Amino acid sequence: MENLIKNAAGRWVPKEVNGVKTIPFKGVNQHFPQGSIAAPPIRSCGSYPLDGNKIVDSLKTALQKCGLKDGMTISSHHHFRNGDLIMNQVFDIAAELGVKDLRWFPSAAFPCHKPMIRHMENGVLHHIEGSLNGPLGDYASQGKMKGLAVLRSHGGRWQSIQDGEVHIDISILAAPTADEFGNATGDRGPSACGLLGFGLADSMYADHVIVVTDNLVAFPCVPWQIQGNHVDHVVVLDKIGDPDKIVSGTTELTRSPDRLYIAELTAKFVQAAGIMKDGFSFQAGAGGTALAFAIYLKDMMKDANVKARFIRGGSTKYLVEMLEEGLTDYILDGQTFDLEGVRSMRENPGHVNTSPFTSYNWHGKGNFASMVDVVVLGATEVDVNYNANVVTHSDGRMLHGIGGWQNCLFSKCTILPIPAFRNRVPIIVDEVTTLVGPGELIDVIVTERGIAINPLRQDLIDATKNSDLPIRKIEEIKKEIDDLVGGAPAKPDLTDEVVGVVKWVDGTVLDSIFRIRTQE
Amino acid sequence: MENLIKNAAGRWVPKEVNGVKTIPFKGVNQHFPQGSIAAPPIRSCGSYPLDGNKIVDSLKTALQKCGLKDGMTISSHHHFRNGDLIMNQVFDIAAELGVKDLRWFPSAAFPCHKPMIRHMENGVLHHIEGSLNGPLGDYASQGKMKGLAVLRSHGGRWQSIQDGEVHIDISILAAPTADEFGNATGDRGPSACGLLGFGLADSMYADHVIVVTDNLVAFPCVPWQIQGNHVDHVVVLDKIGDPDKIVSGTTELTRSPDRLYIAELTAKFVQAAGIMKDGFSFQAGAGGTALAFAIYLKDMMKDANVKARFIRGGSTKYLVEMLEEGLTDYILDGQTFDLEGVRSMRENPGHVNTSPFTSYNWHGKGNFASMVDVVVLGATEVDVNYNANVVTHSDGRMLHGIGGWQNCLFSKCTILPIPAFRNRVPIIVDEVTTLVGPGELIDVIVTERGIAINPLRQDLIDATKNSDLPIRKIEEIKKEIDDLVGGAPAKPDLTDEVVGVVKWVDGTVLDSIFRIRTQE
Repeated sequence: MENLIKNAAGRWVPKEVNGVKTIPFKGVNQHFPQGSIAAPPIRSCGSYPLDGNKIVDSLKTALQKCGLKDGMTISSHHHFRNGDLIMNQVFDIAAELGVKDLRWFPSAAFPCHKPMIRHMENGVLHHIEGSLNGPLGDYASQGKMKGLAVLRSHGGRWQSIQDGEVHIDISILAAPTADEFGNATGDRGPSACGLLGFGLADSMYADHVIVVTDNLVAFPCVPWQIQGNHVDHVVVLDKIGDPDKIVSGTTELTRSPDRLYIAELTAKFVQAAGIMKDGFSFQAGAGGTALAFAIYLKDMMKDANVKARFIRGGSTKYLVEMLEEGLTDYILDGQTFDLEGVRSMRENPGHVNTSPFTSYNWHGKGNFASMVDVVVLGATEVDVNYNANVVTHSDGRMLHGIGGWQNCLFSKCTILPIPAFRNRVPIIVDEVTTLVGPGELIDVIVTERGIAINPLRQDLIDATKNSDLPIRKIEEIKKEIDDLVGGAPAKPDLTDEVVGVVKWVDGTVLDSIFRIRTQE
Repeated sequence: MENLIKNAAGRWVPKEVNGVKTIPFKGVNQHFPQGSIAAPPIRSCGSYPLDGNKIVDSLKTALQKCGLKDGMTISSHHHFRNGDLIMNQVFDIAAELGVKDLRWFPSAAFPCHKPMIRHMENGVLHHIEGSLNGPLGDYASQGKMKGLAVLRSHGGRWQSIQDGEVHIDISILAAPTADEFGNATGDRGPSACGLLGFGLADSMYADHVIVVTDNLVAFPCVPWQIQGNHVDHVVVLDKIGDPDKIVSGTTELTRSPDRLYIAELTAKFVQAAGIMKDGFSFQAGAGGTALAFAIYLKDMMKDANVKARFIRGGSTKYLVEMLEEGLTDYILDGQTFDLEGVRSMRENPGHVNTSPFTSYNWHGKGNFASMVDVVVLGATEVDVNYNANVVTHSDGRMLHGIGGWQNCLFSKCTILPIPAFRNRVPIIVDEVTTLVGPGELIDVIVTERGIAINPLRQDLIDATKNSDLPIRKIEEIKKEIDDLVGGAPAKPDLTDEVVGVVKWVDGTVLDSIFRIRTQE
């Protein structure tokens, strides 16, 4: 443990991550950054084709023109989610060119990126920094990745690029529609995926930017979510992504009666607490329970004749219905989770494109997240101090990304509706396996066995004390659950070897992820 | 002259301007920049109100909170043109606070800013860097300003901020509509002026940003042309600008029969040269002749059933009609010159907002200007080598800004329709008083006495040789004009004292402006 240091949350974190000295977490809003933002090299139009035509004949040519070489950092966005068809090709080309030790810096990786394991085995890829879902997370959890996993929120990813913590050599931006100059949009074209906000920082700060499209239009591509003035090369392929796979598991409405009940309780809490009033705002994540919450809330809003000022996306058909029925002035969207979201963004001026800069970046002059009245998020675990985990399961395996989760905690009211058990494992624990959200930012836990309000939020306790909601102490709920399954859940079987870290929104290290003990 | 050096255009320019070493002009596309773009300090949301409310009670309070002090640079945009009501107030407050030696860095100054002369006299303002129209230009021409005038194109202004040549301490952004977070738009509100693109670089790179509005709306202000995430303070005033004064002299259609004829010839040339074809693009400046050109071209396009892909603004009601009649897919606008332009930008998704970054910045990975098929611009003088002047009159007085003029010269075909005389002074000279546009970028001169094509453009000469257009050698046209007035025009009576410089689009110094000899 001599390479670890205890941070302000009492967590042991590495002094160094992938060769770079870290700053341990100092507490919420205790770290104030020094220095200046990253400064890309000054370019000249004289080095680019004056007719604006930046098309090159293949992805391979583009990578070669960008000077792809050992040790570089390659970034990508995840707007196609599990339907991305580009990034495996990129690393196949790198392998073909004999390039080694690359860092992949996606805004998130998905099960479709399982082939990257081969590139990590053969040395093309040194490690992946970005939310690791499914097989890649499992691989990293077993300590097989050469470098450490670095998990960041969407806002934290922007912060890390903007602050120069992560220098991107080559950014690959899959673009459903683009022109030859590199102006690009995600809201139209045969592979439309909505927006491209997760690639925006990459386009602004990377040394080299490649736009890859399967729908080339005459200049100008309007709207331009990505500005061609940041783009070096444009590559046209037959197909860049499968938009049907944007709708992955997490964006389906729950059918579980328990979870529907939790969702309903959550909506009732929002109303009882006086949050649901004209001009309010909310954000609900993409999980099935959060979606169900939005549907319950919608009915309540209609009954009470209440209109929201804005709803934060990820957008789904449910939010689009609310916009179209006049239940909100705006959807401020960061990611489209289904094709109705894509259509609405394209057609409706009230369905507004945002980026992690506007929404989430902690190192700006404010961001939108802290202005949202109530946010409803998932979690894999919470503890009795309201700390929460969203990246590891109770067995210690790293299986989920952080997404905008940490950033959203700054909302005026953060609610986690969670089932009391998953596979008979209690979700409320004494101490979370991995600390991803500090308890002081988490206000309310809603389970099918009752609602717990963080004692720091006396205002919410007072506002709801005369309601008929099942408000209880978190310790009571936990005891009831533990008694039912015959005791508190077992601690996961972990080694003391660090395989990854969780960054806080300000770039400090909040917690470590330890290698799981495998049978072998 | 020991402080001057001869640049690649043969012009004598200062080795140092306002205390900073210069790079003399090296030739078109001969200077390739080194180094990195400007890097503002990293901020933290923890230093800003988490509820997003950045309103302070007055402009004075906002300036004090920004730490206004001696020697600072204060920037502003000119979207209200001669109707700006903010910037005189800003420097009055500075005077009241006893602050001295400020640099004002507007994207342009107008006659309404005449009171700044008092602040230059009393020491509050050291000098102004930005296009100087009317009384301020006259003041500077007489050598009365403490610092040198530095004239930049719109693209050059972006470049100078982006490259760190000009560090802005405090940016003041007049915003016709804004929310308390600082999101701002110019396209709506009682003082709507269209867009705010000339303030965009300021918002991104200034240390401190103040948004001043007279139309505060609930968050979010949609669209946000300026992002609140860049804004420190918001000030609400009764009235920020007079949109009626956006329509200044240069945006009125000419009634002169000579100029109408020149405009018609220009349109006929564009057709004869084969430029006017489906999918083409053009830009016409705001001068009366350029506007008349657009109207003639419109009729020709209708007759020939030709549709443009895009038209560049500044937008006027004439361009808006073309968009609404389906004669173009898009207006790519940088500045609205009348209220019809403002309305169209607000209502029509085909009327697209651009910035000097997308349109003009030479130090990007390309810009839009070089992709435009034909641009029609004004000039105060041209010489027999096709060099042109747009900032000084033939008496040497600095009376006009450069605007986007230099940037537009990179169009595929640059045409200057100009009258042969102004006040009986011939416009075609042996050598321009001030070099603002190198002749190699200027393709065609259209006068009422004939059309001259730059010999470098054999393609245009060939394309039009069988037309019935009055195509002549420039020397012939000049001789005819000189003979009519009894000889070549007199050189202006200038001293050898430099009072200002003209920057090229790459930040190098293209020419000097010399003090005029006054009677006193």
